[in-house]
Amino acid sequence: MSDASDTSAATFETWERRLHAFAALADPAAARGGSGSLGGLRVGVKDIIDVAGLPTRNGSAACADAPPAAQDAPAVAALRAAGAAILGKTVTTEFAFTDPTDCRNPHDLSRSPGGSSSGSGAAVGAGLVEVALGTQTAGSLCRPAAYCGAVGLKPSYGSIPTEGVTPLAPSFDTVGIIARSVETAGRAFAAMSPGFDAGAAKAPQDCVVAPLLLDPATPASAETLAAFDAAQAALLGIARAGAPPRLGFDVAAVVADHRVVMNREAFVAHGAMLDDARGARLRPKFAAGLRGGADVTPASAAAAAERLAQARAAFWDAAEGLDAILTLPVPDGAPKIDGTTGFQDWLTPWTVFRGPLIALPWGRDGLGRPRSVMLAGRPGGEATLLTLAEALQAASPPLPRPRLPAD
Amino acid sequence: MSDASDTSAATFETWERRLHAFAALADPAAARGGSGSLGGLRVGVKDIIDVAGLPTRNGSAACADAPPAAQDAPAVAALRAAGAAILGKTVTTEFAFTDPTDCRNPHDLSRSPGGSSSGSGAAVGAGLVEVALGTQTAGSLCRPAAYCGAVGLKPSYGSIPTEGVTPLAPSFDTVGIIARSVETAGRAFAAMSPGFDAGAAKAPQDCVVAPLLLDPATPASAETLAAFDAAQAALLGIARAGAPPRLGFDVAAVVADHRVVMNREAFVAHGAMLDDARGARLRPKFAAGLRGGADVTPASAAAAAERLAQARAAFWDAAEGLDAILTLPVPDGAPKIDGTTGFQDWLTPWTVFRGPLIALPWGRDGLGRPRSVMLAGRPGGEATLLTLAEALQAASPPLPRPRLPAD
Repeated sequence: MSDASDTSAATFETWERRLHAFAALADPAAARGGSGSLGGLRVGVKDIIDVAGLPTRNGSAACADAPPAAQDAPAVAALRAAGAAILGKTVTTEFAFTDPTDCRNPHDLSRSPGGSSSGSGAAVGAGLVEVALGTQTAGSLCRPAAYCGAVGLKPSYGSIPTEGVTPLAPSFDTVGIIARSVETAGRAFAAMSPGFDAGAAKAPQDCVVAPLLLDPATPASAETLAAFDAAQAALLGIARAGAPPRLGFDVAAVVADHRVVMNREAFVAHGAMLDDARGARLRPKFAAGLRGGADVTPASAAAAAERLAQARAAFWDAAEGLDAILTLPVPDGAPKIDGTTGFQDWLTPWTVFRGPLIALPWGRDGLGRPRSVMLAGRPGGEATLLTLAEALQAASPPLPRPRLPAD
Repeated sequence: MSDASDTSAATFETWERRLHAFAALADPAAARGGSGSLGGLRVGVKDIIDVAGLPTRNGSAACADAPPAAQDAPAVAALRAAGAAILGKTVTTEFAFTDPTDCRNPHDLSRSPGGSSSGSGAAVGAGLVEVALGTQTAGSLCRPAAYCGAVGLKPSYGSIPTEGVTPLAPSFDTVGIIARSVETAGRAFAAMSPGFDAGAAKAPQDCVVAPLLLDPATPASAETLAAFDAAQAALLGIARAGAPPRLGFDVAAVVADHRVVMNREAFVAHGAMLDDARGARLRPKFAAGLRGGADVTPASAAAAAERLAQARAAFWDAAEGLDAILTLPVPDGAPKIDGTTGFQDWLTPWTVFRGPLIALPWGRDGLGRPRSVMLAGRPGGEATLLTLAEALQAASPPLPRPRLPAD
C-alpha cells in the first residue's frame, strides 16, 4: 500500500461523489499545510471534533445550525502545528453512535464503511487523505479502519486531549487515527500526544506476544481466521511467543456493562435534547440509546463502571508479561449496506481495557473486502506497539488500492 | 443562615471591591432570570465553565485574549432553562490548579477563600449569589465551600455534563455546586443532572451512617474535632449507626497516585502551552504541575490509575451497607493568605471514590472562621445524601452572615 494519495481535484471529486466521506470541506486557503513532522500531510477530521471555521455538526440534524467553531480542538491544533493540511470534516454517525450514514466503503460501494468514524475510514481507504482523526467509545475507530482497508490506531485512554471533541461517553471516548500506514499513524500520534517518547519502544525481538480471541463463540469467517493464523505466524517471526491470558471474567458481561455506562453517560451529555425541539430530529438508534440511558439509575451505572474496572484489572493481571496481544477487530469483512454499522462487540472489551490498539490490513478476502488483524498493547505502551505493528505490516500481504469508481 | 441574598447593587459593589470574587459580570440584560424551579436564583459560574457572551479565561494570563464563548456549557444552559439568573464568572485559580488568586474570604478578608473554586465560595459565603458552580478534581469545591461558610455539593463523578468545562484531569473533574443551603444545592443539582430522581431517596431514619476520618494522623484543630463530634451526635438522632469501614489500603498512597494521574492528565490537556508563548505567562505551581506531568510516563500514569480504581473498589466493599459517611473536609478553618489555597489531602481520596460529597457549615470557631463537616455518599446516591444533609443542616449551629466590609 503506497502512503501517498492521489491529490488531483478531479480524482477527489469523483471519489467523493460516490463515497460521501466528507461532511464539510475547509476553504483551500485554510487547508494549506506547513512544514514540520507532518508537513503537507492531508488530514480529515471526524465531524465531532472542532476545526476552526467549520461547524461541528455531529452528523446530526439537531446540529444543522451549529456556528463555525471558534478554534481547533487541541488535537487538531497539534496536527496543524506539525504542518498537516486540515482538508475538512469527515462524516460521522450521529453523535458517534450507531445509526448509519450515506457514506460508502471505497472497496465496494455497496458495502458499509463501518462506523462511527465512517468518513474517516472511507477517506483514508480511498486515498483521499493520508490521515483522518476518529474516535472510539466502543469500536468506532478500529471497525471502519478494518472495513476500509486502513490502519486504525486507537491509543491509550487519555493519551490525546479530548477537549473540543463532542462527548459520547467520557469514560471511554478516545481520539484516534486512521492512516494509510502504521508509520504515518505513529507520526500523527507523536504530534498529538503530549510527552510521547518513541524512544521508549522495546525492540520487536524482545517483545513477548500471544494470540487471543476474546469471544471465540462468535463465528468468524474462514478467510478472517486464515488472516489471523497468517498474522500469528508472521508475528512469531518478529517477536517471542508468550502464553495467551486466561480470562477470569465473562466477556459478554463486559460488553453489557459497557453499554449501560455508555448509554448513561450519553444521556448525561445529550439527554437534554430529548426534552426540546431537537429530540424529534434525532436518528432512531441514538434516540433509543439516550432513552435507554435515562432508564439507568446513577447507582447502577456506577456499579457497572466498577465491574468494568475490575475486569480491566483482572485482564492486565492475566496478561502480565505480555507486550502485545494479537487479535481480530471484526469477524468478517464489511457487510452490505443493511441499516447497521457492522459488528463491534469484539472491540468493546479492548476499549474497556484502555490500552492502545492497532488494526492493520491483511490482504483481501474472496469478495475483495479488506481483512484486518489487530495488535493490542498495555496502557501507555504505544511506542512498543507501533514498532511491532510496523514490523508486522511490513510482513503483511498487499492490499491493492480501490479503483476509482466509473463516473 | 438565610437563603436569600442582599441583592442591592451598592452592597454587591462594596463586597466585590474587597472580595474579588468575580472575574467578569454579564450584561444585566443577559443576566435576567426567568421562571422555573430556579426562577430568579442568582448564580455565579467558575471561570473555567463556558457562559455565552463571556470569555472563559481560566484565571490565566495565558487566556487573557479568549473570545466570548459562543454558547453556555450544558450545565449552565440547564440552570438558565430552569430560570436562574447567570450573573457572571467567578474567580478560579489558574486552570483550577493551586496558585492562589487575589480573592478573599468573606468571613475574614485577611484569610484565603480556598481554591480552586475561590470566587464561587466567596460569592456564596458573602451572599452575593445563592448558587455558584465550581469544579472538583482533588478538593477544589468542598474546600472553598468549607472555608467560606457555604454548602458544597460535589456530586458523583459523571453526573453533570462536563462539556464546555476546561479540563484539568478528566478522570476526576466533576462539576459541583456551592450554595447557601442544602435545599438550594439540591434544586440546582436536579436541574443540571439528567435523570436525577429525588424520589429515590431513602428516608433519613432508614439510613445507616458511620463516622470516618480517612487520615487521623493529620492534626485537626480541637474546634474542628468538636464540630465533628457534635455533628455525629446530631446525625445519630436522624439516622441509624453503622460500623466505620476498615480500610485495607494506604490513604497516603491514594493521594500520591491521584497526583501522578492528575499531573499527567493536566499535561495531556494543557502541556502544549509550555512550548509556546503562553508558557511564560503561567503561574508557578501550575507550570510546575505541567512539567511534573511531562515527567510521568503514560504507562506509570496508567498503573497509578489502576491502583486508584482498586482502592475505590476496596473502599466501597469495606463500606458495604452504609448509606453515608460523616467526615471532615478540612482539618481547620481558612488559613491566612499565605501563598497557598489551603489543605486538600483529606478531600482527594473522596474525589477518587467518586461518590457525592456534601460539605456543610457547622458554626464558627473562636477566630470567627466557619467550621464544616461533610457527608459522603455512595456513587449515584445523591437523592439519599441530600435528604440526610438537609436534616443535618437543620440541626446545625447557626453561622451568622459575614458583615459588609467598611468601605
